[in-house]
Amino acid sequence: MSYEIADDGFEERIRESFGEQKVMSTLGATLDGVEPGAVRIRMPFNDAFTQQDGFLHAGVVATLLDSACGYAAMSLLPRGGRVLAVEFKLNLCAPAIGEEFLAWGTVKRAGRTLTVTTGELFAVENDERKLVAAMQGTIFNLQTNQ
Amino acid sequence: MSYEIADDGFEERIRESFGEQKVMSTLGATLDGVEPGAVRIRMPFNDAFTQQDGFLHAGVVATLLDSACGYAAMSLLPRGGRVLAVEFKLNLCAPAIGEEFLAWGTVKRAGRTLTVTTGELFAVENDERKLVAAMQGTIFNLQTNQ
Amino acid sequence: MSYEIADDGFEERIRESFGEQKVMSTLGATLDGVEPGAVRIRMPFNDAFTQQDGFLHAGVVATLLDSACGYAAMSLLPRGGRVLAVEFKLNLCAPAIGEEFLAWGTVKRAGRTLTVTTGELFAVENDERKLVAAMQGTIFNLQTNQ
Amino acid sequence: MSYEIADDGFEERIRESFGEQKVMSTLGATLDGVEPGAVRIRMPFNDAFTQQDGFLHAGVVATLLDSACGYAAMSLLPRGGRVLAVEFKLNLCAPAIGEEFLAWGTVKRAGRTLTVTTGELFAVENDERKLVAAMQGTIFNLQTNQ
Repeated sequence: MSYEIADDGFEERIRESFGEQKVMSTLGATLDGVEPGAVRIRMPFNDAFTQQDGFLHAGVVATLLDSACGYAAMSLLPRGGRVLAVEFKLNLCAPAIGEEFLAWGTVKRAGRTLTVTTGELFAVENDERKLVAAMQGTIFNLQTNQ
Repeated sequence: MSYEIADDGFEERIRESFGEQKVMSTLGATLDGVEPGAVRIRMPFNDAFTQQDGFLHAGVVATLLDSACGYAAMSLLPRGGRVLAVEFKLNLCAPAIGEEFLAWGTVKRAGRTLTVTTGELFAVENDERKLVAAMQGTIFNLQTNQ
Repeated sequence: MSYEIADDGFEERIRESFGEQKVMSTLGATLDGVEPGAVRIRMPFNDAFTQQDGFLHAGVVATLLDSACGYAAMSLLPRGGRVLAVEFKLNLCAPAIGEEFLAWGTVKRAGRTLTVTTGELFAVENDERKLVAAMQGTIFNLQTNQ
Repeated sequence: MSYEIADDGFEERIRESFGEQKVMSTLGATLDGVEPGAVRIRMPFNDAFTQQDGFLHAGVVATLLDSACGYAAMSLLPRGGRVLAVEFKLNLCAPAIGEEFLAWGTVKRAGRTLTVTTGELFAVENDERKLVAAMQGTIFNLQTNQ
C-alpha cells in the first residue's frame, strides 16, 4: 500500500507524543520504527505485566498495539493532527511469551475523520517470531489549529 | 439474568488466580466484588499508566475489563476450570479520567467451551460515575483435572 | 437509561428511512418498535436466508442488528440527522433457528459525531425467547441541513 | 503465508457446503476461488439488498465475508471438518457501491479448535477495485466422524 504524506515532520510529532505516553515508559516500550502509515513498538518481556500463567496480559498486548495503530494513523495527518482511539478488536492467536514483543500498527484506510487500522504483535524468542495477536480498530482524527 | 453455579468455591478460585496476575498488583488493581457471573475490579487513578493527554491508556482500560470478564466466566466453571481470552472488542465512550475506575465483567452467555461476556468500565469522580468504555468478548473455558 | 430527545418526529423519520432499505423488505423484516434510544426489528424465519445447517446466516443476523442499532442512534438525532455504520462486532451465542427473530438495537452512549450501540437478537419459538447473538458497534452521525 | 493441508479434497467439500447455503443463491453469490487458507466469493450488485442510500447493506457485506472466512478456515481442516462462526468484527471503509463485489477470506492463524481469519471486500467498477470493508473473526472447528 502507498500513502499520501500530509506533513514531512510526522516522525518528530509521533516521537514527541510517544514520549508523553507515560504508560510506554512504565512498560519499558520504545518506538522502534516510524514510516508513513506504519509504526512499530518494541517491549522486552517484563514479569510485572503478566497474567496468571506468566504470559504478557492480553490488555498489555492491546496497549502496545493500540498505540502502534494510533501513531500509524497520526503519521498521515497534517501538522497539528492528533488521534484518539474509537474502538479496537483484538484476537489472541498464541500465548504472549518471549524475550521481547514487537507491535506493528498499519493504516488500512485513511479517511478524513476516521482511520481504519490493523495491527499484529509478535513474540520474539531466539530470533524467531511468532504471531501472538491481531488487532483491527478505528482511530478518530482530531485537527488542531496550530 | 440468573446463572447456574457449578462450584461453590468459585470466589476462592478467582481470588487465587487474581493474586497470580502480577499485572494487577502492578496496576494497583483489586478484586472488588465476585458474584456468580459478575466480577468487579477497582483501580485508583495512576499517572504511570496514562496516554499523551493524561487519560488512562485504552489498553489499560482493556486490561481491567478483560480480567473482569475472564473471572466472570470463571465464576461459572466447575472446579479446576480455567479461562483464556479468545478475543475482545472495546469501544471507548469517554476519556478515562477520574479518581478511580470500576471495571465490571458479566457473563452474557455461558457455553461449554466458550463464554460470551460483556464489560463496562466507569470512572468515578466526586461520587459520580461516568461510562468510559464497553467491552464484548469471548472466553475459552479450559477444563483441568483436579 | 434515559435519553435526550432532539426531535419529536424521530419515529416518522426512522420509518421513512426503514422503508427505503430495500434489503428489509427483501428479508420480510418489519419495524416492530421505535422508542428514544431503542429500536426493534422483527423477521419471520425464511429458508432463503439460511446457511448450510438451515440456521439463519450470521450475516443476516448482523443485517437486522446493524439496522436496529443504526435506527436506535438515529432516534436521538436532530431533524435531518442521518446515520452510517462505522463498524460492528457480532458474537454468536446460539444457532439462529426459530419461528421468528427479534433484533433490538440500543444506544449505549450518544455522542455528537459517534454513537456507541449494543444489540441483541432473539429467536422466538413457542413463545420462548432464546438469545442468538449480541452486537456492539459504532454509528456515525451525519448532520444534514434541512 | 503457507498452510498445512490436511485433506486434498477440501475444494469439493467447500463447494458442497457452499451449495447448501441457501442465502448464497438468494444473493446471487458464487464461489469464485478456493485455495488452501483463502476463499473468494463474488456477488453482482443487486438493488434488492441495499440500505437507504442505495449501497449494499453492511450486513450483506458481512454475510459474504463471514462465508468467505468460514470456508477459508474449512479449507485447512481434515475430512469431516465443519465450521461455525464464533464472532466477527467488520469495519466499513467506503460505500458498498459498484458493479460487483469480491469478498476474500483468509486464515490468519489456524488452531485446533479455533481459527482466526481476516477478510476484505472490494467493490469493482470499470475494472477498478476499491476496499469497502475489512473483517476480523473467529471460526470454531467442528470435527465430525465420517
